[in-house]
Amino acid sequence: MNSKTPVTVIGLGEMGQALAGALLGSGHPTTVWNRTAAKADELAGRGAVRAGSVADAVTASPLVVVCLLDYATVRAALEPVAERLRGRTVVNLTNGSPAQAAELAAWVAGQGADYLDGGIMAVPTTIATEEAFVLYSGDERVFAAHRETFEVFGAAKYLGADIGIASLYDLALLDGMGFLFNGFHHSVAMVLSREGASAVEFTELLVTWLTNMAKVLPALAADVDADRREGAEPAITQGLDVQLAADVNIREAAREAGVSTAELAPGTAILKALLAAGHKEWSAPVTVRHLRSGKD
Amino acid sequence: MNSKTPVTVIGLGEMGQALAGALLGSGHPTTVWNRTAAKADELAGRGAVRAGSVADAVTASPLVVVCLLDYATVRAALEPVAERLRGRTVVNLTNGSPAQAAELAAWVAGQGADYLDGGIMAVPTTIATEEAFVLYSGDERVFAAHRETFEVFGAAKYLGADIGIASLYDLALLDGMGFLFNGFHHSVAMVLSREGASAVEFTELLVTWLTNMAKVLPALAADVDADRREGAEPAITQGLDVQLAADVNIREAAREAGVSTAELAPGTAILKALLAAGHKEWSAPVTVRHLRSGKD
Ligand SMILES: NC(=O)c1ccc[n+]([C@@H]2O[C@H](COP(=O)([O-])OP(=O)(O)OC[C@H]3O[C@@H](n4cnc5c(N)ncnc54)[C@H](OP(=O)(O)O)[C@@H]3O)[C@@H](O)[C@H]2O)c1
Ligand SMILES: NC(=O)c1ccc[n+]([C@@H]2O[C@H](COP(=O)([O-])OP(=O)(O)OC[C@H]3O[C@@H](n4cnc5c(N)ncnc54)[C@H](OP(=O)(O)O)[C@@H]3O)[C@@H](O)[C@H]2O)c1
Repeated sequence: MNSKTPVTVIGLGEMGQALAGALLGSGHPTTVWNRTAAKADELAGRGAVRAGSVADAVTASPLVVVCLLDYATVRAALEPVAERLRGRTVVNLTNGSPAQAAELAAWVAGQGADYLDGGIMAVPTTIATEEAFVLYSGDERVFAAHRETFEVFGAAKYLGADIGIASLYDLALLDGMGFLFNGFHHSVAMVLSREGASAVEFTELLVTWLTNMAKVLPALAADVDADRREGAEPAITQGLDVQLAADVNIREAAREAGVSTAELAPGTAILKALLAAGHKEWSAPVTVRHLRSGKD
Repeated sequence: MNSKTPVTVIGLGEMGQALAGALLGSGHPTTVWNRTAAKADELAGRGAVRAGSVADAVTASPLVVVCLLDYATVRAALEPVAERLRGRTVVNLTNGSPAQAAELAAWVAGQGADYLDGGIMAVPTTIATEEAFVLYSGDERVFAAHRETFEVFGAAKYLGADIGIASLYDLALLDGMGFLFNGFHHSVAMVLSREGASAVEFTELLVTWLTNMAKVLPALAADVDADRREGAEPAITQGLDVQLAADVNIREAAREAGVSTAELAPGTAILKALLAAGHKEWSAPVTVRHLRSGKD
């Protein structure tokens, strides 16, 4: 007999298919549902049970994992089957804001079900590999009860009872990734202005450079924490004059290359705001304080 | 007798001091000059020759490395000693644009000296470590003649005879780093809105996440090159609806957290422009083409 928890996966987009595939691969009885039924074909071929309706899908398992486009879609899927949720655990891995997580958690609790919120830090192809991790928040006992199942997707990181914390960290990490990707697009666009330039060759340098620079971030974070705790001086600083000089050069090179410069505006604005506030040096704590001061 | 090339370093800011220190450490006879003379004290204690003027500094060595605030400062330092440059090699590692590099190269050639332009991809503390690399462009024979000396600073990468190419790559890499750091500042600011949140703990997750995501960039670059060469379909795409949903959530979470949202505007604008142009999917080639189309 299979001792693994039966799991239902609602939503078989790129990510939902990867989650259901991982569950099947590790021997969980898996039931799936998707609006466009054809997306269940491959999973059904591998042993997944195809539910004909959300109601049947929910009823099939004590643990229901939801991964849809957004919270509005989640509400639209679950509200008609509210009375089927009692006694089950709903884990929502759909991307949403902390406020949306809190609202949905309250509604699910109102149906007599347990709720965990989560954020998937992986792409579909890295689900169930060492690289993947998934953030969870909500009742710690509920998390503990299903932790083993969650580990199927990737490392399961419990962040706390505060239901919005997984969303907040998820969005903050996606925020960081968005900047990384925008920087990639913009720097590649600059380089391609040269006859014969290769995005692949440049990106090899870029990945080495960014990986090196990412190693500096923990020390910058330590500066931020020390500043908040005890008002300590930052260990890492750089003259704003040097930073502004490089900023002007990047903008000038983008212009020479015929590449849009609008993407550079926020970075320039931060440096100028620090200067206007009387700083001579950039540091992580000053910059983070500026962003938190709400002055745009 | 010392067989290592005597080198002069002009400019002893954070970076110039690191460069001169590396030369001393590997046994090069090293002459230094800086406007604020006290910055030579430590290096002089380690055996550097302190030049009393730029003229003396230039005359002391066949190879002159310059690392100052900007190109205007470089011109101001070198122009008064123009006639001392003949027969020497000037390597300018000051940050500047491709156009500035071309102008300075022409001027130095006019004095009968060789010129290489360069960009330092390191911070002062990683100079002379495995992490550092320095980009060079200009006459390949001049580069080859001094390559061994250059390797003292870090891996020496020759990019080509086109004098502006080292600047362009340097600025494109700094561009990418600027986005990385802005993303770090912004995501940390979001997380700190929560009582008891630690920048250090969050940044541990962020570095893991960004390092994983940076591994995706070479495949995105391959999509960009294939698109330009043969109009091939990109291998990596994602629904713009999913990306826009996450974008709205990030903005909403930033607002809830009391963090500035101005930094998110360019990313949002790109997604909306792709949508307006009729795309259903984000991909790297479409995005890079959009940035190169000059429409801001
Ligand atoms: N892909 C990634 O790399 C990744 C990474 C981390 C997190 N995530 C998150 O995972 C979630 C799903 O993303 P995905 O990549 O799987 O997106 P996707 O491939 O576009 O799938 C979207 C899913 O939502 C469903 N859906 C959309 N509108 C619907 C509606 N009105 N009614 C019912 N179902 C609807 C789709 O059903 P149909 O098939 O019928 O259209 C599909 O199951 C998102 O919150 C995303 O942020 C994705
Ligand atoms: N630090 C880094 O992490 C880093 C990394 C890569 C590249 N770089 C590049 O290296 C170059 C130098 O940066 P840095 O970090 O060493 O900056 P820094 O510590 O601020 O040093 C600036 C240098 O420029 C000199 N200077 C400024 N204005 C001058 C003037 N009007 N006349 C004569 N000298 C003048 C300074 O002389 P005084 O000492 O007399 O002020 C000092 O030698 C920049 O182009 C920078 O982009 C730096």
